[in-house]
Amino acid sequence: MTVKINTAEQAASLIDKYDTFLFDCDGVIWVGNELLPSVKETIELLQSKNKKLIFVSNNSTKSRIEYIEKLLKLNINNIKLEQIINSAYSTAIYINEVLKLNKDKKIWVLGQNGITSELQNFGYETLTLDDIKDKELTMENINNLIDLNVGCVVVGLDFQLTYLKLCITLQYLLNKDIPFIATNIDSTFPFKNTKLPGAGSVVEIASFSSNRKPDAICGKPNPGMMDSILSHHKLNKDKTIMVGDRLNTDMKFGSVNDIDTLLVLTGIELESTVSNGHPDVTYYADKLGDLYALGSK
Amino acid sequence: MTVKINTAEQAASLIDKYDTFLFDCDGVIWVGNELLPSVKETIELLQSKNKKLIFVSNNSTKSRIEYIEKLLKLNINNIKLEQIINSAYSTAIYINEVLKLNKDKKIWVLGQNGITSELQNFGYETLTLDDIKDKELTMENINNLIDLNVGCVVVGLDFQLTYLKLCITLQYLLNKDIPFIATNIDSTFPFKNTKLPGAGSVVEIASFSSNRKPDAICGKPNPGMMDSILSHHKLNKDKTIMVGDRLNTDMKFGSVNDIDTLLVLTGIELESTVSNGHPDVTYYADKLGDLYALGSK
Repeated sequence: MTVKINTAEQAASLIDKYDTFLFDCDGVIWVGNELLPSVKETIELLQSKNKKLIFVSNNSTKSRIEYIEKLLKLNINNIKLEQIINSAYSTAIYINEVLKLNKDKKIWVLGQNGITSELQNFGYETLTLDDIKDKELTMENINNLIDLNVGCVVVGLDFQLTYLKLCITLQYLLNKDIPFIATNIDSTFPFKNTKLPGAGSVVEIASFSSNRKPDAICGKPNPGMMDSILSHHKLNKDKTIMVGDRLNTDMKFGSVNDIDTLLVLTGIELESTVSNGHPDVTYYADKLGDLYALGSK
Repeated sequence: MTVKINTAEQAASLIDKYDTFLFDCDGVIWVGNELLPSVKETIELLQSKNKKLIFVSNNSTKSRIEYIEKLLKLNINNIKLEQIINSAYSTAIYINEVLKLNKDKKIWVLGQNGITSELQNFGYETLTLDDIKDKELTMENINNLIDLNVGCVVVGLDFQLTYLKLCITLQYLLNKDIPFIATNIDSTFPFKNTKLPGAGSVVEIASFSSNRKPDAICGKPNPGMMDSILSHHKLNKDKTIMVGDRLNTDMKFGSVNDIDTLLVLTGIELESTVSNGHPDVTYYADKLGDLYALGSK
């Protein structure tokens, strides 16, 4: 049963029920460069009640520090770096804590610095085309470009994608013993009034050429990201709620992982889609800020 | 009912029944740089009976002249350029004769010179990243890199694939009125004892990012290639047979297009796979050369 949060009592009861709030950002906390109404007050209310707040994004190219900076600019304070989880960080947590990859193994990364730096922070040695020195970087030389110490492949969005990078990635993926980890599977991302190919498109070409599915996908709505969050933050699923504005990523992320969800209507979904009930939505509200605003009336 | 060609009478009857023989090359005519036994005599026998012979390949990067040169080197003579159909040529025929794209439209090509040169031979103006002059080639400038005269997109194998090329390809494919033509969909191709990503992998990323399937695929086993061959050579399907060594491309190419097939066992398939009958195989023989050799005994 999907319930609309309409009253001060409902808002208070929802806040009481959960210890941890996972937030999608765009369409929930902000839209573009504008903070949404009463979000600051809601965040502060949750902080005053010692709730754990985690901000969850699929973007692996933006660093977590940039998220903190954006929150600060919007006057949301007291958020620590570990409260920001993007798909690059989630991937690094997954490899370290779930996959428990040995630190003497290198990780081949088809992706940006956002990914390599998070992996390096956990003590892993990463390998990209830029790291291959003193070798002829051609297809003809493919057999010499493979490093036998590579023990894991990470694929995500790579603005410097080339055919040779795909060739090398395929060589590792042809070895079925090497885990294939994807940051996220968004097919596109919005950019300058249009769309550009997203991490999911890069994952798809690696997947299609190797005839393998990723062993884990560390973005919403896939379990890999939830595994990372739960493992890293030692959360209790029954006391955790996912707040988002999209059914196909945020709400699905909650429901496939058996976590309650709150849909806010400040993004792309309409009330009519959920007012008769939706299997992925536990609660919905006009806006996140209602958790504060309904009680302050 | 699948029939094995075992006797001189069966060979003669097969030759009589068909006007046109479509041949896969590798594993049928040659293996590596070796001509297979009695192939020269079989080709000459068919030529002496005025059969139309067409050599069909999915490789869009090798030019058709290179095929003629290889046949000459193997002492197979009197084959004209128009008897060689690779997926690049098939794509050009398809766009010209089946799609009938207006010549004032440009064609955006994500692929090699093999493709652009075949299209240019038919009078089309092609556009690739190399043709974009005096513009800043960056993602940020994406909206200025689009040519409004592009009326068709061709995607095939591109060893110079980059993220920016994929971005531009996506912009065209987001316009559903622009046809999306693929050369072929082989996920990989063999190279130096390993595999590299094939045209199908490049098609897949274009397809996944745009959420579109190609409107036509001009390689085996897809109907686009057969449409090109039938249209260009004015063939009668009932009098045409496809000869090949692979079930999943060559034999399927025949059967999905309602053309009889002859499987030869000089490639990757085993007799045990077809001896009890196979829905895609009309006839099979130990080798193509048997069409001559059985009669000469």
